[in-house]
Amino acid sequence: MELWYTEKHSDNVGITLKITQTLFSGRSDFQQLEILDTLEYGRMMLLDGLVMVTERDEFIYHDMITHPALFTHPAPRKVLVIGGGDGGSIREIVRHPEVELAVLCEIDGLVIEKSLEFLPSMSSAINGEHPRVKLHVDDGLAYIRQHQGEFDVILVDSTDPIGPAVGLFEEDFYRLVFSALKEDGIMVAQSESPFYHAEIQKNMFRNLRTVFPIVEMYQAFIPTYPSGFWSFAFASKKYHPVRDFDAERAAKRDFHTRYYNENLHLGAFMLPTFAVENIAE
Amino acid sequence: MELWYTEKHSDNVGITLKITQTLFSGRSDFQQLEILDTLEYGRMMLLDGLVMVTERDEFIYHDMITHPALFTHPAPRKVLVIGGGDGGSIREIVRHPEVELAVLCEIDGLVIEKSLEFLPSMSSAINGEHPRVKLHVDDGLAYIRQHQGEFDVILVDSTDPIGPAVGLFEEDFYRLVFSALKEDGIMVAQSESPFYHAEIQKNMFRNLRTVFPIVEMYQAFIPTYPSGFWSFAFASKKYHPVRDFDAERAAKRDFHTRYYNENLHLGAFMLPTFAVENIAE
Repeated sequence: MELWYTEKHSDNVGITLKITQTLFSGRSDFQQLEILDTLEYGRMMLLDGLVMVTERDEFIYHDMITHPALFTHPAPRKVLVIGGGDGGSIREIVRHPEVELAVLCEIDGLVIEKSLEFLPSMSSAINGEHPRVKLHVDDGLAYIRQHQGEFDVILVDSTDPIGPAVGLFEEDFYRLVFSALKEDGIMVAQSESPFYHAEIQKNMFRNLRTVFPIVEMYQAFIPTYPSGFWSFAFASKKYHPVRDFDAERAAKRDFHTRYYNENLHLGAFMLPTFAVENIAE
Repeated sequence: MELWYTEKHSDNVGITLKITQTLFSGRSDFQQLEILDTLEYGRMMLLDGLVMVTERDEFIYHDMITHPALFTHPAPRKVLVIGGGDGGSIREIVRHPEVELAVLCEIDGLVIEKSLEFLPSMSSAINGEHPRVKLHVDDGLAYIRQHQGEFDVILVDSTDPIGPAVGLFEEDFYRLVFSALKEDGIMVAQSESPFYHAEIQKNMFRNLRTVFPIVEMYQAFIPTYPSGFWSFAFASKKYHPVRDFDAERAAKRDFHTRYYNENLHLGAFMLPTFAVENIAE
């Protein structure tokens, strides 16, 4: 018997992956969670039926949600991740020696628990033993309301703007993030596919621009995400991701990154025309 | 009844598209050809069961196989396309006023015929009425043997290195292309997915480097191709695609490009680490 999992990216197109086994399937208070083993992409986590991460291509997403901000901010000491319960973002953040504290605020404890159990290559830094990492199982909005002016960098490592993450794409949320950042802080958020989600992007970037003085989009290719073409929003109080990028520090990093590098950092902000047009002011 | 077409990108992963109808299905002397109508991507041409072009995303492939070379060469007067029977590459080439002659050499007349019939938005410049376009239904190797030292730019717009295109990835072919180019000529060839086809890329770039003094890889995202992350080889006798890029001419172009622009041209050559490593010398 062959088992295939098909994620529809719209009513009319999808990706299909051959599955060897279902490692976990269950419901939390917030969402449906599955962990499947695939032949091509290794283990894969689904939330509400959508691919969140796979072992084979997660390095791309986690390189790109973390390193551009961390190599732009001159001294990223305190970093917060909202969402990101698989731990991949925290794993990349603590590779930066400047980081003194990395906080994970994930609303769904089951995501953390099952990532620790089934995705050890991603969750290695959130196992409770890392001296620079703190975990909070809490609503991101509630958490940042209580931690104003504290962070150098805040990463919004959320699901799509449906389900528990819907509030993470709205102007009120961006205002809270703004005030939870220090006076030179940077926020990065995943911002969907320029190819499929033009309308979401348009609203999201309009909302961000009402709050932050510097707002730029950058891109990465992620094969298991809709269209394979993904984007991130870089929203900043002071530092520009290209003009203030510390390319020398990035080039001298003492860890290997299979996707990110100091040239790619610059190229990631050079967008196709249709993506520029999606978010034109 | 719902009809879905699934192209497997390996034994264990694929893309699946909802189909409204099969417009054509038949066999030429060279390959199996289908034209299907999809709901998400418009009309789609398959050769030997692999997606070649769709109406919705072909602008990306055709922008990127043509404009980087044509905005690098200072005077691209004679341009040859080997393969490319859908006509999309020729359509882009003739938008450049410098081009005096664009030659299409496609081995399979059925591809041209059915593109003219079913894909008019792509094939508009190969309908026999364009004053600067010549069509040859011929083997590319045979054609360039008879046209040595003639072309400013040669684009290898081929299928994957199986079936009729297998010879288009070998060193002997690149030597023929080299000598069919003028003394400052440029060749561009599609070079598969860095994510899925590392071994093909390694061989292809090694072969190209034995022939051309300047060989660089650049990238584009193409959602209907395996992994969505695609690449092109830029092989050149004299002009470097970044250092000799005529950004001013590109910025002043009098036609709209939905993917290509003068910033993206530079960013396309800034590759992820794993892609750089695939083709390291």
